[in-house]
Amino acid sequence: MNKDRLTSLLTDVQTGKIAIDEALHRLRSLPYDDLKFARLDLHRELRTGFPEVIFCKGKTTEQVARIAAHLAAKTSPVLATKAGPEAYTAVREVCPDAVYHETARIIMIGPPQKKKNTSPILILGAGTADKPIIEEAAVTAEAMGHPVEHLIDVGVAGVHRLLDQREKLYAANVLIVVAGMEGALASVVGGLVDKPVIAVPTSVGYGASFEGLAALLAMLNSCAPGVTVVNIDNGFGAGYYAGMINNLVNKS
Amino acid sequence: MNKDRLTSLLTDVQTGKIAIDEALHRLRSLPYDDLKFARLDLHRELRTGFPEVIFCKGKTTEQVARIAAHLAAKTSPVLATKAGPEAYTAVREVCPDAVYHETARIIMIGPPQKKKNTSPILILGAGTADKPIIEEAAVTAEAMGHPVEHLIDVGVAGVHRLLDQREKLYAANVLIVVAGMEGALASVVGGLVDKPVIAVPTSVGYGASFEGLAALLAMLNSCAPGVTVVNIDNGFGAGYYAGMINNLVNKS
Amino acid sequence: MNKDRLTSLLTDVQTGKIAIDEALHRLRSLPYDDLKFARLDLHRELRTGFPEVIFCKGKTTEQVARIAAHLAAKTSPVLATKAGPEAYTAVREVCPDAVYHETARIIMIGPPQKKKNTSPILILGAGTADKPIIEEAAVTAEAMGHPVEHLIDVGVAGVHRLLDQREKLYAANVLIVVAGMEGALASVVGGLVDKPVIAVPTSVGYGASFEGLAALLAMLNSCAPGVTVVNIDNGFGAGYYAGMINNLVNKS
Amino acid sequence: MNKDRLTSLLTDVQTGKIAIDEALHRLRSLPYDDLKFARLDLHRELRTGFPEVIFCKGKTTEQVARIAAHLAAKTSPVLATKAGPEAYTAVREVCPDAVYHETARIIMIGPPQKKKNTSPILILGAGTADKPIIEEAAVTAEAMGHPVEHLIDVGVAGVHRLLDQREKLYAANVLIVVAGMEGALASVVGGLVDKPVIAVPTSVGYGASFEGLAALLAMLNSCAPGVTVVNIDNGFGAGYYAGMINNLVNKS
Amino acid sequence: MNKDRLTSLLTDVQTGKIAIDEALHRLRSLPYDDLKFARLDLHRELRTGFPEVIFCKGKTTEQVARIAAHLAAKTSPVLATKAGPEAYTAVREVCPDAVYHETARIIMIGPPQKKKNTSPILILGAGTADKPIIEEAAVTAEAMGHPVEHLIDVGVAGVHRLLDQREKLYAANVLIVVAGMEGALASVVGGLVDKPVIAVPTSVGYGASFEGLAALLAMLNSCAPGVTVVNIDNGFGAGYYAGMINNLVNKS
Amino acid sequence: MNKDRLTSLLTDVQTGKIAIDEALHRLRSLPYDDLKFARLDLHRELRTGFPEVIFCKGKTTEQVARIAAHLAAKTSPVLATKAGPEAYTAVREVCPDAVYHETARIIMIGPPQKKKNTSPILILGAGTADKPIIEEAAVTAEAMGHPVEHLIDVGVAGVHRLLDQREKLYAANVLIVVAGMEGALASVVGGLVDKPVIAVPTSVGYGASFEGLAALLAMLNSCAPGVTVVNIDNGFGAGYYAGMINNLVNKS
Amino acid sequence: MNKDRLTSLLTDVQTGKIAIDEALHRLRSLPYDDLKFARLDLHRELRTGFPEVIFCKGKTTEQVARIAAHLAAKTSPVLATKAGPEAYTAVREVCPDAVYHETARIIMIGPPQKKKNTSPILILGAGTADKPIIEEAAVTAEAMGHPVEHLIDVGVAGVHRLLDQREKLYAANVLIVVAGMEGALASVVGGLVDKPVIAVPTSVGYGASFEGLAALLAMLNSCAPGVTVVNIDNGFGAGYYAGMINNLVNKS
Amino acid sequence: MNKDRLTSLLTDVQTGKIAIDEALHRLRSLPYDDLKFARLDLHRELRTGFPEVIFCKGKTTEQVARIAAHLAAKTSPVLATKAGPEAYTAVREVCPDAVYHETARIIMIGPPQKKKNTSPILILGAGTADKPIIEEAAVTAEAMGHPVEHLIDVGVAGVHRLLDQREKLYAANVLIVVAGMEGALASVVGGLVDKPVIAVPTSVGYGASFEGLAALLAMLNSCAPGVTVVNIDNGFGAGYYAGMINNLVNKS
Repeated sequence: MNKDRLTSLLTDVQTGKIAIDEALHRLRSLPYDDLKFARLDLHRELRTGFPEVIFCKGKTTEQVARIAAHLAAKTSPVLATKAGPEAYTAVREVCPDAVYHETARIIMIGPPQKKKNTSPILILGAGTADKPIIEEAAVTAEAMGHPVEHLIDVGVAGVHRLLDQREKLYAANVLIVVAGMEGALASVVGGLVDKPVIAVPTSVGYGASFEGLAALLAMLNSCAPGVTVVNIDNGFGAGYYAGMINNLVNKS
Repeated sequence: MNKDRLTSLLTDVQTGKIAIDEALHRLRSLPYDDLKFARLDLHRELRTGFPEVIFCKGKTTEQVARIAAHLAAKTSPVLATKAGPEAYTAVREVCPDAVYHETARIIMIGPPQKKKNTSPILILGAGTADKPIIEEAAVTAEAMGHPVEHLIDVGVAGVHRLLDQREKLYAANVLIVVAGMEGALASVVGGLVDKPVIAVPTSVGYGASFEGLAALLAMLNSCAPGVTVVNIDNGFGAGYYAGMINNLVNKS
Repeated sequence: MNKDRLTSLLTDVQTGKIAIDEALHRLRSLPYDDLKFARLDLHRELRTGFPEVIFCKGKTTEQVARIAAHLAAKTSPVLATKAGPEAYTAVREVCPDAVYHETARIIMIGPPQKKKNTSPILILGAGTADKPIIEEAAVTAEAMGHPVEHLIDVGVAGVHRLLDQREKLYAANVLIVVAGMEGALASVVGGLVDKPVIAVPTSVGYGASFEGLAALLAMLNSCAPGVTVVNIDNGFGAGYYAGMINNLVNKS
Repeated sequence: MNKDRLTSLLTDVQTGKIAIDEALHRLRSLPYDDLKFARLDLHRELRTGFPEVIFCKGKTTEQVARIAAHLAAKTSPVLATKAGPEAYTAVREVCPDAVYHETARIIMIGPPQKKKNTSPILILGAGTADKPIIEEAAVTAEAMGHPVEHLIDVGVAGVHRLLDQREKLYAANVLIVVAGMEGALASVVGGLVDKPVIAVPTSVGYGASFEGLAALLAMLNSCAPGVTVVNIDNGFGAGYYAGMINNLVNKS
Repeated sequence: MNKDRLTSLLTDVQTGKIAIDEALHRLRSLPYDDLKFARLDLHRELRTGFPEVIFCKGKTTEQVARIAAHLAAKTSPVLATKAGPEAYTAVREVCPDAVYHETARIIMIGPPQKKKNTSPILILGAGTADKPIIEEAAVTAEAMGHPVEHLIDVGVAGVHRLLDQREKLYAANVLIVVAGMEGALASVVGGLVDKPVIAVPTSVGYGASFEGLAALLAMLNSCAPGVTVVNIDNGFGAGYYAGMINNLVNKS
Repeated sequence: MNKDRLTSLLTDVQTGKIAIDEALHRLRSLPYDDLKFARLDLHRELRTGFPEVIFCKGKTTEQVARIAAHLAAKTSPVLATKAGPEAYTAVREVCPDAVYHETARIIMIGPPQKKKNTSPILILGAGTADKPIIEEAAVTAEAMGHPVEHLIDVGVAGVHRLLDQREKLYAANVLIVVAGMEGALASVVGGLVDKPVIAVPTSVGYGASFEGLAALLAMLNSCAPGVTVVNIDNGFGAGYYAGMINNLVNKS
Repeated sequence: MNKDRLTSLLTDVQTGKIAIDEALHRLRSLPYDDLKFARLDLHRELRTGFPEVIFCKGKTTEQVARIAAHLAAKTSPVLATKAGPEAYTAVREVCPDAVYHETARIIMIGPPQKKKNTSPILILGAGTADKPIIEEAAVTAEAMGHPVEHLIDVGVAGVHRLLDQREKLYAANVLIVVAGMEGALASVVGGLVDKPVIAVPTSVGYGASFEGLAALLAMLNSCAPGVTVVNIDNGFGAGYYAGMINNLVNKS
Repeated sequence: MNKDRLTSLLTDVQTGKIAIDEALHRLRSLPYDDLKFARLDLHRELRTGFPEVIFCKGKTTEQVARIAAHLAAKTSPVLATKAGPEAYTAVREVCPDAVYHETARIIMIGPPQKKKNTSPILILGAGTADKPIIEEAAVTAEAMGHPVEHLIDVGVAGVHRLLDQREKLYAANVLIVVAGMEGALASVVGGLVDKPVIAVPTSVGYGASFEGLAALLAMLNSCAPGVTVVNIDNGFGAGYYAGMINNLVNKS
């Protein structure tokens, strides 16, 4: 249930196209649907601009499929993140048009939101191993209708690879920096641009990276201001946040 | 050295108002001034939209004063954060117009940036003890020319205090949530709005808050998307980031 | 050996129904039975109101089965927690009436304790992925004879899902809040009710949730009083504690 | 504003004793008062059975005094926890009847709640150094109208000191265990009684106690069920929770 | 090479039974043998009273077998700890008399050291799941020639199971306490006896036991003196240490 | 109340020297004295061979003095550890013969226990800064009647300083190793001797020593067996444990 | 692209051997090649003296193979570290001369760098289980053209195994110490030599080694100066650093 | 006792200038002097090329002064690190020529070692607040006779400040990078040079810098090889290590 559908429903009531009883029935499921094992927050798009997203970790494939089918019947697009191939198999059975972004581990059902008219979101990735998280951010932002560009493997061990792309950095409205190990890329980028930078620490690394803790702490302590941080490996969260910021620009 | 000053300098050269030698002399200090113990990044405003900010912790009051004087001679406004009263005393001697925001622990020299024409930045604080960090964020955002509103003591122990203010939440372009202890306010706010939320964990609490670690981890794990996080007690960083986002709206 | 059995035994001695020697023999195994690899605390029901519970983690399936058989011969109900399907297979061979609660991972042998005459215990779960722990708490409380209700997926990302159920919250004698990620639900619920809330952090989440540490710390730092905390994923402990509190009401 | 005052107000309206306008005025301040730096949750007693409590850490003495005065004008008793002597001096100036429990570091204004007709809450303290937290719990529970007993210095290094007091343990409705260092007392007590035990880890200890972390982890991992845990040094939280449980018994 | 073998060798030289060249050859391998991938410390028995022990974790089964064969040719008994069944298979091929203690995960080659004439070492285990570590300690101490007794499942959730065995506690020369979860058993035992207690934290538990960290910290903070601690799950280390203490008694 | 006093009391009863009533009166205070804020465990010497020791941290000087006076009236020697000079001043007023070991921060009242007839306890200290903990161990062991020797500043940065003293190492019955920073001395000593080594990590160091954590972890992971560990800076615990081991030798 | 190739290219231009267009084409790929998923830093050898190294963890085998093939076409030697056998299989298909160092888990393509004329790099390993990291360091240093020697299993539990090799220690220009568990070997070696020591903590150990944290902290706190530390299990980093130091000697 | 003094002594013996008895007397104090509370390692200069250095933390000023006087009588230069002004006052009384480097907190007695004939050691500091550690490194390296240059405040928030100084970076033999907060400077520098980089994390920062932990972890996880790490705030260790490397170049 999003603004457009709601407006159209109310117009239909006003013009007598549909009876009040019917309208009530359609609205009845507000504000959420109770599947017993899940309480689907159908209001969320109205409140926050994007439908509820399914976080697959810890859910059975059957639960994922049932939630996906239920949401897909009422809203679009439906995203399921951190989804393995078995989850996709289960979802495709109930939503045949579901698409699987394998590297990003995202299942997407339905078309993306309306294309936004803005500068691109730029995603910078420190290394090749960060690719799954980079793509998770990209698929998310694209589902929200935003143009996305990426620069992969521009880590600070060869800072010229980054400085060479300065024009792309300057052109972006908002930047996402994905990096594991010491996460230094976020600070360097933060010092170069006048746009908000969203830092995503990844669990890439070993030993004293402690599954991403090193990058997380580094990014939180960025000596350059203009950097905020999301959870380790949370590409979705970064893509979503970039989309929210870019929405602000689109609207005005 | 900001865009306006630079444009005006180049115009003066073009129109012959000032000689090339004189212009060279004025530009000479680019891109930074080396005070031996500090390398002032005068380019920063050009690159990132705001002059270099002095982080006082770990610097002697003499160093703070010398850097402040040097920066104030070339740019405005100059902010010095995490500044104690002695630092202010030292700065005021060299910059008599310096103002001290005592609760925020910020010294400010020179007028704020040009007033932005945007919706306000809304700062929500979970408790009274978070006030110093709330004010640090507010003073920073105001120095960047942004309108700021705050709601203090709207922590989730009485969630009606927050829900009552829903209209203010909906009216803001960007929101800052400042909370210590369990930091739950960030998730609740993130679930109510469609605008970016910046979460600031504070060191308010005791025992297993581990100086803000509990709130930090909670905010990083927000079940509501649309929330990013800055360092513990980093009110400045949050105010600055909110300002950057709001700048995007102002420009368009 | 519980109070009822003990009273009946002593009455039989008093009335001469059984000889003293026989009574001695039956009491001989008090206060515990030594299986060499385990020392079964048969006194526990007398002391704490519920028989010893088998914690399966780290025990071989053979050990679980032998302990279960031994306990089931003398007391009821017997619970085995954190039990995998293989453990159930082994137990069923020696206790054919054993029931397996698969999601809760609990094996139960024998009927639950006598139905208590009280208001229900209300279990709130933040998300679908918390279901195994929610059910572990529910099965435990039900084994103690308590009425149980649950509300699943009422996490704070859509706080209206919770506020809608306020009447259920007010009706409960004691509440259990199960949540992973940032665990904020515990504080919000704690601020709404005048009854004890037991918070169970779960390991649901990733990255900086550090296997439930984020939720644990958040719950320990709840800004709302009236919240206590059990170990991460300890649904059994929460159900048991809720039962103990509810027993107090039942008795009076 | 508690239930009694509200009922009396409505009765006065009903009987015409006070005009509707006057009643509205008196209710106007619901649900909270905004002091700008604090938002006093006057509804809390209605919702949770006890007025809002002032947590002094991080607040200036002036803020504490102003909040205390404001609350004391509308409700009773008012508690201010983790309060130093300077806070007390400031409060006494605006609330001359304020009493200071020095060891407990609690300021109390107004009489305690109505005496509850229940068994006592028993507070067990492992060592003499835990006394401030023991008293914080005791003062809190007494302010709620509950009878309280304590046993101090019954740590497990001399377990006979505890076993000697078994009758007291059996007589209590609810038990609070306060212990630092290895916090073993909670498990031992939990294994002896059939009533809920609230464990309070304290920061008493040194070295690898890591300011109470050792006791906290130990208590969370209690091998005896029937134990829940509050934050390190949170005597208030334990006393409050014990009071909530005891309220259940009183009411029935 | 132990004292007995060395004495006998020197005696043979003295009495002319073997030529000096032959003796030199036999002594040549002192103080260690270099297998390239390992440097066998054949002196160790002379220095510390027990031959070098093979720690299998991280070694290939081939390396374990080669080291075992080499050591077994020169000394006895040879122990290999933390050994899986594949390691045993490999060792048995080169040392057909190797015995595998499956629960203890120890391979032993050759007879134990000479029986010591002392009181027994008493090993107390908190729960059944601690059995592998209990047996690791027992096998080790027995290999050193010491009499060993154990009491399993005497955890503090039923402290009477422990107090019942007080006579056994008083009879022991040295005690080993093996416990996971909150590790409280060590403190309780430490408060009951006047003999040294060696505490072994185990990784038994879940959630906030953090793989044994909770028990480790608890044991280090024991409020009863007379307790020292070894690494998590280090049954071997505890058995060995108990043997060293008991050796002191045997000698005098 | 120790064995000697108890035997003498019972003999006096047997021989009619004192009346049964009088004996009862003298025994009445068993097993502990309740000072309200402390429960003095007078049985402890009987049970564990040494009177209860006062741990001063967290106690007021008044409490320390009252406990000390009470204990000193009934047993000897009385030790108060981690005691500051003010505590000593307070104790001396009630126990004029109290002696203060300033570096060790121990107050001692009454003569040490009977001289034991054994080899010395050898205390090795890695550096000069470890001296307070070394002396705490030494004073404790001496109070138990044991001969003590120390070698200070034999850290592994100059391993020859240690190897030079090998004879002293071999001559000791039990060794205490006190070290901060990386705590490597424990492993090196453990590899040289066939006697039990007690390792005391100290908080000497900075940065990543994390107040002694580095040394603690290192000692727990000693590659040489024969090493157990006590809490950080717990010189008392080490001295006490060494005394317990040495007692075993003395007795036989 | 290294110095030699670049010089030769420019000479060919100077002498007219190749046309400027052709030279431009060959230089075109500077400073990096963009494979979309990776940005190969072909400048790195020029800047830092060694070609970019492929860190395999987190990369798909296909990515590793494509990067390896691309790099091998332009530079030599190419190293791929932390490489499993499947990665090797994939690389061999595109680079048939690739060699797999199985224990070191390094794939190497092309001949090592020119043999350096220096004293050897000495690698000391505390135990046999450290062998994979020791070999990783050795293969790396050898790829850089350095002579390497190693001493394995010289841990401090038998310090004579180390002292016996003192001459080798004195002969080395730079030393690498590889150790898990308590990592004490680094401090002992650091105290014996006047050459730089590079310490590599390994994840060998269990329990409170916390996957190498114990050794890492110990090495960072070495009481002997002259020791620096790399990441846990980072044999490559140590070998590379030793090579850099040894290069300094070679050049002069 | 260094090589020169030893050679000269032996020559004097050879030439009869001093009697053997006298020489013995002078050598008698080898290898260390036992001050009871300290064991001065006079051999250290012979073994490691630099005299023992006094680490002041945890030592009394009297101990520092006595050790300083003792060492100064036999060797030069004597360094005392982490020394407060009171320590200096005490030392100056016994060593009037002692010099105090206030910012570096180092006391130095006697002239530095012979000037080395090498390229300079370059010390880069990320911020002004890192100055004390930068100077600690500089004073140490200069005491060893090395030329030192520094670049302060070249943190990555303005990476052009660093890139501008590329020539200085290329000219150095060895580089020290001192940085707090996120410590990113080490990785960026490591990617630019072909010389060894020593990274010193500092405790500059707040909140989630956790007293330098963030910078430490970041530096250990540097994506650029060629970086090793010393303890947090260990400027001395870095300066010393740089000196050792530079010594290698000087010698050849």
